[in-house]
Amino acid sequence: MPLPSPATVGMALAHVDTPALLIDLDAFERNLRRMAEFSRTAGIALRPHSKTHKSPIIAAKQVTLGAVGVCCQKVSEAEVMVDGGIADVLLANEVAGSAKLDRLARLARRARIAVCVDDPDGVAELEAAAVKADAKLHVLVEIDVGGRRCGVSPGAPAARLAERIARSPHLSFSGLQAYYGSAQHVREARERQARVAQAVAHVRETQAALGAIGMRAEIVTGAGTGTYENEAASGVYTELQAGSYIFMDADYAHNKGGNGEPVDTFEHALFVYATVMSAPAPERLIIDAGLKAFAVDSGMPVPWRLPGALYHRPSDEHGIIDATASRERPRRGDKVLLVPGHCDPTVNLHDWYVGVRGLGGAEPSVESLWPVAARGALF
Amino acid sequence: MPLPSPATVGMALAHVDTPALLIDLDAFERNLRRMAEFSRTAGIALRPHSKTHKSPIIAAKQVTLGAVGVCCQKVSEAEVMVDGGIADVLLANEVAGSAKLDRLARLARRARIAVCVDDPDGVAELEAAAVKADAKLHVLVEIDVGGRRCGVSPGAPAARLAERIARSPHLSFSGLQAYYGSAQHVREARERQARVAQAVAHVRETQAALGAIGMRAEIVTGAGTGTYENEAASGVYTELQAGSYIFMDADYAHNKGGNGEPVDTFEHALFVYATVMSAPAPERLIIDAGLKAFAVDSGMPVPWRLPGALYHRPSDEHGIIDATASRERPRRGDKVLLVPGHCDPTVNLHDWYVGVRGLGGAEPSVESLWPVAARGALF
Repeated sequence: MPLPSPATVGMALAHVDTPALLIDLDAFERNLRRMAEFSRTAGIALRPHSKTHKSPIIAAKQVTLGAVGVCCQKVSEAEVMVDGGIADVLLANEVAGSAKLDRLARLARRARIAVCVDDPDGVAELEAAAVKADAKLHVLVEIDVGGRRCGVSPGAPAARLAERIARSPHLSFSGLQAYYGSAQHVREARERQARVAQAVAHVRETQAALGAIGMRAEIVTGAGTGTYENEAASGVYTELQAGSYIFMDADYAHNKGGNGEPVDTFEHALFVYATVMSAPAPERLIIDAGLKAFAVDSGMPVPWRLPGALYHRPSDEHGIIDATASRERPRRGDKVLLVPGHCDPTVNLHDWYVGVRGLGGAEPSVESLWPVAARGALF
Repeated sequence: MPLPSPATVGMALAHVDTPALLIDLDAFERNLRRMAEFSRTAGIALRPHSKTHKSPIIAAKQVTLGAVGVCCQKVSEAEVMVDGGIADVLLANEVAGSAKLDRLARLARRARIAVCVDDPDGVAELEAAAVKADAKLHVLVEIDVGGRRCGVSPGAPAARLAERIARSPHLSFSGLQAYYGSAQHVREARERQARVAQAVAHVRETQAALGAIGMRAEIVTGAGTGTYENEAASGVYTELQAGSYIFMDADYAHNKGGNGEPVDTFEHALFVYATVMSAPAPERLIIDAGLKAFAVDSGMPVPWRLPGALYHRPSDEHGIIDATASRERPRRGDKVLLVPGHCDPTVNLHDWYVGVRGLGGAEPSVESLWPVAARGALF
């Protein structure tokens, strides 16, 4: 059970308590439709990553618009998604430890569950858990396509792992996890394209190694909001895992397209709403949202529609807006919107989404309250 | 209601699920006793900041050892503390907005509540809320002692605000909030001392201005784990707000004492317990704890008792330990301890404290499970 919510349905935006996590429902719905339309047109499956939103309500909206299911990063997230009615979940990560593996295998009795592996012992552990639960697990081999995080080497080592999966009676080899995380925030379009080209070469090499032993990866899954167009055009990927497109981090606004201009396919749709709690000087408007309301690992949140204003010096429960260069200067008691630098870990700090309709208009109001159901779902 | 806990009481440490927030109970209790003993010997009140732990159970331990009450940063934290039996709470912050002020004033019917103010309108709003709730609020004037965050200017402006409080029938002027946050992590002892000396001068100036209008601040409250000895020795402070001493951030280990050596009065007592989920190469042991398990604003977590090992490149649910320079090299499936770079926002990411007894010994086991009761209490 999450904490009490900062709003009630029907409330005018100005009455929402702060700090609150707001969704601009209009922009959010446009983002949902744009990516659904892209995947339909490109002829590639969309399996959005639910670590962004941690909400089965949002996941269901994605599935309604055509997504084949969702990705999760943790078993406890997958449990929340299945409990919330999502029937097809890829745990796009390795899982270690029998307690977690047993939970995952039990979940596979209620939904289609796929999981990644990058180690022979990992395959044996997955098989043992599936036997114990009398369940079938779909397993993908994660290959390191250049991100230098998890993943077995592409080519023959990956194929050997796939063969081991195929020989495990309770496991089914489904394909390759080929996600290039660190390519997502590379600024230049050409450089992102080059990274994905490298990943594609690794996928081809692995398909060839699989072919040599009479196997094939039916599913090749990867991509994020920074690179999805490249994977979609590759001819080797079958599934896109993009998640951030629904909200758009402030940091993503720094990615440039082929024309050198910032990519603006998707709109900022997630905000933290905060109150100026103290205003001792124009360069110091202190708001009630700090490190416990924003994740700052990818840069500071950006004040919304306050050109020239700058958020800096966050402490646990304070942040400072320097509005000296801004034409508009909020006063003590005023409420302001900020775009998080990194949405996923910011969402994880909050218990509720306050869905606002007509944010840009004259009378924005609260249309929905959705729990961040998998907030804190770490294990 | 928090999420299910990663452990049960009596469980061997090795069976605790990960990522988990662990307290080394032996070190934690030594830290509690050391600060209690310091405040007793120095003859200064201790009012630890509960934003560090967000737990009425831990607050009660501090009060049992002599603390006069606790500090909170948010009204919702104060509610959790009062619900948990803490009778004396200083909201060491400004509060803006009538919804929050009404809740705070209602709380003052159940406990002794003090709050800070730095603006004349703020005084009027506090009085209005206290009238509405028919409650008495104790109010401190926050002065800016150099931290350039909240706070009115010391001296006459502060005294004018105090006078306004004293004239408000439902408010009682209690003293000065004179906290110098940014001094806490200054590395050199001499420089920390100089900053506090500046704060002390501002307090004296303000007491003089109060004296000129026949008033006096009975309480002067401030200090953190980095500077508490300086405030205690000042002769002007009456209360210490240190909070982090119970756990000790990795970052605090960089503060030096008067002898130039790292200050080691308090011990690291808070850890995140994580599992190596993938080990593709010696320089890449990937653990299941990333940005959603650690706050990284004050630097990366530090692997514990793995000299030479380094945590880096956190993503949402991954982090990488480079153990190439470490004699001991954890393997896939092994569990490791890490000291958070910044404890307060790290605690806020977790739902449970797993209290471990005998962490340094042969058979560490779980002695307690305490909810992080005020986790996510943002408003």
